[in-house]
Amino acid sequence: MATELEQLRTLLGEISDLGRARALLAWDERTQMPPAGAEMRAEQVATLARIRHERLISDELGRLIDAAGAETESLPYESDAASIVRVARRWWEKARRVPAELRAEITRSSSLAEHAWVDARANSDFAAFLPHLRRNVELRRRYAACFEGFDGFEHEFDPLLDDFEPGMTTPEMVAILGELRDGLRPLILAIGRGGQTVDDSCLHGSFPIVVQETFARELVADLPLQEGAWRLDGTVHPFAAAISPADLRITTRFDPCYIGAAVWSVIHEAGHALYESGVPRELWRSPLASPSSLGFHESQSRLWENWVGRSRPYLEHLLPRLRELFPDRLGTVDADTLYRAANKIEPSLIRVEADQVTYNLHIALRFELELEIFDGRLELADLPEAWNARMEEYLALEVPDDAQGVLQDVHWGAGMFGYFPTYSLGNVIAGQLWDRITSEVPDLEERIGRGDFVGLRDWLRENLHRHGNKFMPKELMERVVGGPIDVAPYVSQLRQRAAEIYGVPLNGTSQFRG
Amino acid sequence: MATELEQLRTLLGEISDLGRARALLAWDERTQMPPAGAEMRAEQVATLARIRHERLISDELGRLIDAAGAETESLPYESDAASIVRVARRWWEKARRVPAELRAEITRSSSLAEHAWVDARANSDFAAFLPHLRRNVELRRRYAACFEGFDGFEHEFDPLLDDFEPGMTTPEMVAILGELRDGLRPLILAIGRGGQTVDDSCLHGSFPIVVQETFARELVADLPLQEGAWRLDGTVHPFAAAISPADLRITTRFDPCYIGAAVWSVIHEAGHALYESGVPRELWRSPLASPSSLGFHESQSRLWENWVGRSRPYLEHLLPRLRELFPDRLGTVDADTLYRAANKIEPSLIRVEADQVTYNLHIALRFELELEIFDGRLELADLPEAWNARMEEYLALEVPDDAQGVLQDVHWGAGMFGYFPTYSLGNVIAGQLWDRITSEVPDLEERIGRGDFVGLRDWLRENLHRHGNKFMPKELMERVVGGPIDVAPYVSQLRQRAAEIYGVPLNGTSQFRG
Repeated sequence: MATELEQLRTLLGEISDLGRARALLAWDERTQMPPAGAEMRAEQVATLARIRHERLISDELGRLIDAAGAETESLPYESDAASIVRVARRWWEKARRVPAELRAEITRSSSLAEHAWVDARANSDFAAFLPHLRRNVELRRRYAACFEGFDGFEHEFDPLLDDFEPGMTTPEMVAILGELRDGLRPLILAIGRGGQTVDDSCLHGSFPIVVQETFARELVADLPLQEGAWRLDGTVHPFAAAISPADLRITTRFDPCYIGAAVWSVIHEAGHALYESGVPRELWRSPLASPSSLGFHESQSRLWENWVGRSRPYLEHLLPRLRELFPDRLGTVDADTLYRAANKIEPSLIRVEADQVTYNLHIALRFELELEIFDGRLELADLPEAWNARMEEYLALEVPDDAQGVLQDVHWGAGMFGYFPTYSLGNVIAGQLWDRITSEVPDLEERIGRGDFVGLRDWLRENLHRHGNKFMPKELMERVVGGPIDVAPYVSQLRQRAAEIYGVPLNGTSQFRG
Repeated sequence: MATELEQLRTLLGEISDLGRARALLAWDERTQMPPAGAEMRAEQVATLARIRHERLISDELGRLIDAAGAETESLPYESDAASIVRVARRWWEKARRVPAELRAEITRSSSLAEHAWVDARANSDFAAFLPHLRRNVELRRRYAACFEGFDGFEHEFDPLLDDFEPGMTTPEMVAILGELRDGLRPLILAIGRGGQTVDDSCLHGSFPIVVQETFARELVADLPLQEGAWRLDGTVHPFAAAISPADLRITTRFDPCYIGAAVWSVIHEAGHALYESGVPRELWRSPLASPSSLGFHESQSRLWENWVGRSRPYLEHLLPRLRELFPDRLGTVDADTLYRAANKIEPSLIRVEADQVTYNLHIALRFELELEIFDGRLELADLPEAWNARMEEYLALEVPDDAQGVLQDVHWGAGMFGYFPTYSLGNVIAGQLWDRITSEVPDLEERIGRGDFVGLRDWLRENLHRHGNKFMPKELMERVVGGPIDVAPYVSQLRQRAAEIYGVPLNGTSQFRG
């Protein structure tokens, strides 16, 4: 007879399998599926999601959690068994709060809104999108209201944040992103005032796709992701999916006229995959197997993309092969030119194309607007105006139309509020990790310059990846860096790099410390 | 409030989605998955299969079938609603017969046996495979015994056949395959006695894979499968999968030294896909959406592969493009040479490489041995000897080792007994369909010669595909060809082609009429 803990593990294993199967259907839809398959694919995905959810809110799961909780009471907090029960209980309690009809309505409405968004963006027609946006906000308010009195939630926006960044409160996120914004604005101003421009023309021109593919695969294998445990495909909007920790699907959008996507976007997605692959075997099929905080997940993709991938030693390591594969564009480029091109900082309209510094202003703007909407300070009809004003204020850019402004991202159309801030949070966490790593991994730069990433990967695995989803993000921060979220290291690192490239003075850090 | 028929449709829709999702996981496993994903993929597939099965045997499904049965009592037999209830009832009644533990044990044992088979074949070591085969047979006996008294089942082997060819009885299958065997043996003997050989060297040599892929895709588009509703990938063992009737996945094994796989194996799989794509929209997600008789399914793949794909007009249609794409091997080949090469008849050891005539002897042999095993006339330990003796008797071939003999196919390792005969049954049905088609579609040969397959496809769609799984195979035969299974047309067509190629006299048909 199986113990209740074993029965709990079995049921959670099924829930995991259903989620992973759904991830495969989604990956396939975006990379392989013949277009005519879309309608039935939607039904298949919905069925898997519904069945998974039925199990997640089942009385049976609640009963097993209680029984297994009693079984594991005396085990250490960080033991696998106690952690599985703890994480499963939080999932169950959150899932049970939301009535099935509301959940179904959210799914239905956000699907409609996303389709409406596609058209609205194509026509730069915010008015056509507005009623859908209104409905999404209204439903998300009702969703948040389900969590009245839930442990740790105080602000109305907390439940929305929590779905992406468990345990993060709205005031905390406001403080972090505010400090980041205030730390970076002077840097961006200083770069602008300096009048120096960086020539990144070596990254543009003709780069045959098939060669880019070869190069991108070499690059991932080099990091290294485990051989035989990943693949790389083309798609429209790059993402990484873990069909299991040993079956990682990286995607990118190869651009025949720009080599950057095949380098930094690929490293970014490989960073996500490295995180998923670092979860120990004994946690697979459990709720601990997938790191659930988007901030931590993004910290890994950003760390590999920006701290490793845009660093001088790494680019020196890549350069010979880049020259060999793309002789026309890069045959004579030197390391300094490549390094400068990879780290160009220049305000631009579109978030997904933004550089590593101004990117965070795009995020700050979105999060501020989200909060103002949910706080009732901003009318949805006034959103484009507010957006454009803040783009002018933060990046000194005029927004020519809503397609390049408020309509550029899918998130609000898909009903995802509280998602954006995790992108910048990932940067901040990566900055803290990097400080720690450089002090603990000997010869880090030299090793990266030799293409030896084992020390770095092992540090991440040992200190972060092996925990999977065992801890809440705040607990994890304490364990990994020995303190809470801190914006300073990230801002300081960006200033350091800007100083190198743009000759901006390094002083004045005090103005952005909290 | 949904009627019980609507509730039934909803539940059956979920069952369909789970089956289709599982099909995608299987397709992905064989064509896309990184190898390290295998272990977790097995869990994912097992979970989807288990959840689907739970729904299929649920009391709830039984209750809805009864209630919807009352609702649809007065509807015509062939109406969608009455047919859904009828087919679902048969599924439910069959599935409920088998205890969960036996089903689990069959899954577990056949998985072990399949792995053992891989090794046994590699080492040509039947003794190592024997205990697994014994276990598979024993479990299949227990499975068959679950159907004691089931409507229409008399012979012990009937339940096994029924899983692949519903309603087909063992004596009927014995008669059909026996008649086919006795009809073809004199033909094969006559060809052998004639001493004529066919030169198919034009099909062998160097055929660049990437060009083969281009050609194969053109060929499928030409048939035509609906644009945007299919894809073609490489795999080890070719198959076709319908992720939905609008999402068809064809696979083939491209051979750099043989163009035949890229032609006839691709046409074969496309024939399966054309069948799945011909099911009308209103039956999708119902139990009527996937033709469930393997014999009928195979009739479609064989009809396109052999009756169309190896016909002279079709090959004349292909020839200019073949010459253009493969100038080294086919640049100067003429239609007659190509036609003869495509229709070479020569006994060989391996079923999947056999020509269209001797193929059926491979099947007869397997089915006879299966029956002798289940009837207790043949000891499993004596199986290799029996196999080899019959290869000598039917095809005058000496089997050098068990890897090229009794161990060549996966089916028995996978626990599938009763599957083989449907391959030949498909040929027989295709022969009957072809007789009917040539009398009803005007200018068929000329149109095929012009690459115009619309008349043929529409005839198949109207007379066969649109019914989906509405009727039992015997009912379907009556509707489509106006009579029962009949071996004569197929044998006569093969004799006709053999007469053209090998100059074998056309008389003597009486000796194989039943």
